[in-house]
Amino acid sequence: MNPQYRDYVELKVSRNRFMKELGFELTEIAEGQVKGTLIITEIHEQQNGFVHGGVISSLCDMACGFAAYSMVPNGVQVFTVELKVSYLRPGVGEKIIAKGWVLKPGKRFHFCESELYTINNGKETLIAKASSTMGVVDDKVNDKYGG
Amino acid sequence: MNPQYRDYVELKVSRNRFMKELGFELTEIAEGQVKGTLIITEIHEQQNGFVHGGVISSLCDMACGFAAYSMVPNGVQVFTVELKVSYLRPGVGEKIIAKGWVLKPGKRFHFCESELYTINNGKETLIAKASSTMGVVDDKVNDKYGG
Amino acid sequence: MNPQYRDYVELKVSRNRFMKELGFELTEIAEGQVKGTLIITEIHEQQNGFVHGGVISSLCDMACGFAAYSMVPNGVQVFTVELKVSYLRPGVGEKIIAKGWVLKPGKRFHFCESELYTINNGKETLIAKASSTMGVVDDKVNDKYGG
Amino acid sequence: MNPQYRDYVELKVSRNRFMKELGFELTEIAEGQVKGTLIITEIHEQQNGFVHGGVISSLCDMACGFAAYSMVPNGVQVFTVELKVSYLRPGVGEKIIAKGWVLKPGKRFHFCESELYTINNGKETLIAKASSTMGVVDDKVNDKYGG
Repeated sequence: MNPQYRDYVELKVSRNRFMKELGFELTEIAEGQVKGTLIITEIHEQQNGFVHGGVISSLCDMACGFAAYSMVPNGVQVFTVELKVSYLRPGVGEKIIAKGWVLKPGKRFHFCESELYTINNGKETLIAKASSTMGVVDDKVNDKYGG
Repeated sequence: MNPQYRDYVELKVSRNRFMKELGFELTEIAEGQVKGTLIITEIHEQQNGFVHGGVISSLCDMACGFAAYSMVPNGVQVFTVELKVSYLRPGVGEKIIAKGWVLKPGKRFHFCESELYTINNGKETLIAKASSTMGVVDDKVNDKYGG
Repeated sequence: MNPQYRDYVELKVSRNRFMKELGFELTEIAEGQVKGTLIITEIHEQQNGFVHGGVISSLCDMACGFAAYSMVPNGVQVFTVELKVSYLRPGVGEKIIAKGWVLKPGKRFHFCESELYTINNGKETLIAKASSTMGVVDDKVNDKYGG
Repeated sequence: MNPQYRDYVELKVSRNRFMKELGFELTEIAEGQVKGTLIITEIHEQQNGFVHGGVISSLCDMACGFAAYSMVPNGVQVFTVELKVSYLRPGVGEKIIAKGWVLKPGKRFHFCESELYTINNGKETLIAKASSTMGVVDDKVNDKYGG
């Protein structure tokens, strides 16, 4: 759909301040799917020493959102309409692998899904699964960066 | 249910590392409901200069979770089973007020809801609404802090 | 928004075959909110003698959907983008009261919520709460009835 | 887990009154996954002649629920804690195939997913995807049939 989708996703990543704060990085960008990694540190923990539910929902949101950005023309914006996260297992380990994909693209919104896996002593474990409606907006967004 | 619910919630808050990282603070703790504030800074932004969807889902998760913690006995753990967030409006302003409450408490889980409001030049705007199932577990959790 | 919203909702109700099959009827239609009733019979039961989860999700869907229809111009269609239902308590009683409302209307979609209450020997009990994204489409829908 | 899982699921199906009313039938029962069929008739339609959102959510609920029942011991009950359905495309065709599976089984609840496909002139189309938390309860449920 967008021959420059990779550049467009990377532009969005480069401007994403909270993503940097968390330490989440994309490692693969394909049409309709992305993959990324977070090295787990103490800042990501909740009260019981597990990865915080907010870190998990943030990664799910970004994996869905960037997958959606890979399927829109340059200049078109993607925003989260709604996100549901199922927390399958507690997050423990060295890092998290996040996978996001577009389940069904559309004119008005892309339905997306994402999965999070922890890597703990070399063992991969599915810890969360999310489904999300991502809005696709052609309007010039009135944002800080002029869209 | 728990005469020391306030202390118990504050104990959980004091150990919540990611909450500190975000800058989210509880301002009110009542039985079955909490209120908190986040001063919006640049670290909370996404690619278009709005508050990041992950920040919003994190606050929704914590508002629900601490509301749930206010309705369990000391030593009992609360964990997020699932969380759904509806993103009603883009987040712009000086701060976010988060309100969380238990819609229906139970033996096995508490159904919770939360709402987020931005304060922008004195104007309060509802930007997100969440519903969540919070698991209530009597087991000794095998956590870093011994539960 | 639509001075004839009541007629428009009633037109949609009159054509809704599955709604009749279930026995669900609207009792109040206001701008952005509706109320309805279902008399519980044996056909609504699941394997344990409670009201079936599918009946509950159907009522939640309709309460949200008709609330949304009350806030669109004539000829504009509403369709369910996604629906999440929290099943708070088992459904037992003589009838169900369903309340639906638009939480936040928009150009592209209306965010809606609904609540279901059973009436059991005169006692009203909240049994379910739903949140839904309702799409609002101006296109001529290619439907059986010509929109 | 339960060597008689097939019989146990079939027992639950045989008592499910609303399922019969809809016309939904299970065609395959394996450990942790089920498949079923609904022949679409006029009673399943909403106001635009498409399959009603309530029919879709009902099938999603049952596909998840019976998949969950295939992974519990005899006498243990399964109930829907929450269900989220994404409506990917309008439902048009001769029949619906529903697939449900347990994504992650647990002591307290099974996380389940389901997908619905329409068959329209021989063409299979994914129209809905659901995720659900199914509660697993060992208690004697106070139901009509004595559990």
